[in-house]
Amino acid sequence: MKHELVKSILNRDKLALSRAISTVENRLAGYGEMLDILYPHGGRAYRIGITGPPGAGKSTLVDQITSRILNLGKKVGIIAVDPTSPFSGGALLGDRVRMGGLAGREGVFIRSMATRGSLGGLAVATKDVSVLLDAFGMDYIMMETIGVGQIELDIADACDTTVVVLVPESGDSIQAMKAGLMEIADVIAVNKADRQGATQLSQELQFTFQLRKRQSDWCYPILLTEAVSGRGADELWQAICSHRDYLERSGDFEVHRRRQIKSRVKELLEARIRSHLEKELHLDDLLDGKADKVFKREMSPSQAADEIFKHIREYGA
Amino acid sequence: MKHELVKSILNRDKLALSRAISTVENRLAGYGEMLDILYPHGGRAYRIGITGPPGAGKSTLVDQITSRILNLGKKVGIIAVDPTSPFSGGALLGDRVRMGGLAGREGVFIRSMATRGSLGGLAVATKDVSVLLDAFGMDYIMMETIGVGQIELDIADACDTTVVVLVPESGDSIQAMKAGLMEIADVIAVNKADRQGATQLSQELQFTFQLRKRQSDWCYPILLTEAVSGRGADELWQAICSHRDYLERSGDFEVHRRRQIKSRVKELLEARIRSHLEKELHLDDLLDGKADKVFKREMSPSQAADEIFKHIREYGA
Repeated sequence: MKHELVKSILNRDKLALSRAISTVENRLAGYGEMLDILYPHGGRAYRIGITGPPGAGKSTLVDQITSRILNLGKKVGIIAVDPTSPFSGGALLGDRVRMGGLAGREGVFIRSMATRGSLGGLAVATKDVSVLLDAFGMDYIMMETIGVGQIELDIADACDTTVVVLVPESGDSIQAMKAGLMEIADVIAVNKADRQGATQLSQELQFTFQLRKRQSDWCYPILLTEAVSGRGADELWQAICSHRDYLERSGDFEVHRRRQIKSRVKELLEARIRSHLEKELHLDDLLDGKADKVFKREMSPSQAADEIFKHIREYGA
Repeated sequence: MKHELVKSILNRDKLALSRAISTVENRLAGYGEMLDILYPHGGRAYRIGITGPPGAGKSTLVDQITSRILNLGKKVGIIAVDPTSPFSGGALLGDRVRMGGLAGREGVFIRSMATRGSLGGLAVATKDVSVLLDAFGMDYIMMETIGVGQIELDIADACDTTVVVLVPESGDSIQAMKAGLMEIADVIAVNKADRQGATQLSQELQFTFQLRKRQSDWCYPILLTEAVSGRGADELWQAICSHRDYLERSGDFEVHRRRQIKSRVKELLEARIRSHLEKELHLDDLLDGKADKVFKREMSPSQAADEIFKHIREYGA
């Protein structure tokens, strides 16, 4: 049954793609095998991350980039990740509603993902879904995430070009968010550029990026955009294409992808080890025993960890 | 030399405490052994976490709680954690300046910590520093953190009572932050209660906590405070004391501490396994070899992880 799904995906059946995404998202039986089979069929999609604080206008910019990709006759898959949606409620509109006319068009596929359980799990699922979109034959994959913590860093690790969208808005909380976002930005869009403070923000950012510009051949473009009117959208798309071009010319594209693969394999390996410890070596019981001694201050947490580690090495790995 | 430091700490020498904290913060030689020796001397300190968005007035509330603790003749150690400071610059004032007269008083010790490298590392260092403060003989330890992502969750995991400080302020980014913060709150302070929207925010929060109140015997107090004028500070301190009382009466205190210890030992164990894999089994080389095959789409990341896992189990754990 999974093999049928695989065949349908390779035949570019969007309904099958939808079902496969649900299978992966919910970790249903056979999802791992399906990913293994589909993995070799991918590798051509270029992956763009779009991140920034809530309300920055990311979705509208994603729509504008999408229409430019479609105009080139290319196909695009969009994953909209909103870790906050179960709480804030309704931050995501229905997928089709959201994109107006675009969602119905042949070359576009959009899927929203909200958190179930851990944020870490959401990032992993997003990476797996991009494998499906890649195998489906998408030329581009866009991953739109809200930059509120760790998840956008994890997802940037699965992208080739990361666009950070900011808005001229004061407030310490935004400042704090910006800090983390700057580390992953390849291209910066100062959106809502008609608002007061846009020029100042863009100057601040120029300053922030001075050092990185000096250390890299990439120019870290900082663009003024107005998602609603479409101002700056052409330049934004151009900047993404230039970054791709830069990566490919410099050899960084392959270097980045290899690094990303390595960190993904490491993640998966750690999950396997964890599951082995829990299921085969009954880690939980071992921990309970030691935690009791630590609680009574008979040993330190570090000494407890050492003893369990020794036990694991002796009694079967 | 480390043993001298240990002796001085047990003799309540603040200078020694400062040096020990630097040793732990910077992972200098002997820091682990020092923690092991000091751990059995702790266990009496009650640990309070204070978290919330930047600018919510956490520091002022911490000061007011501090003065109430001092008035009881008790000792308090304060760890102020600001993961954003290397970027936003100057979010932390000097430790002594910050607390006005309080920092100079006999029963109080305050230390600021900013990120060096990973946020995960910062949370670990904070937990280690609280071991030092505990062994030093503090009656209370307060950990003040900015709620901007994961770190406040990690640190809440090292506290007995967590106070979440919010301010009446609209904005999606604050909404998003609130969501994560609600999960860890035992006591909620709606600070800057003179501002418009304070009553409405407090009503929203009452609503949010309805379900949790029904599932627990704890009442999740939501207090209106004005840090600057001191309004509500008595009630806040009272709420913290009530929560402590509740934990101790219900037996949850021990349950929580045992759970926290277990997760700390697990963290440390995973770090040991990781280091073993890297140093003894040359994980990096194994990963490089497999990453190459994955890059060429000859296998999936998951298959690569499986093969390395098998190799590890065969050739020495």
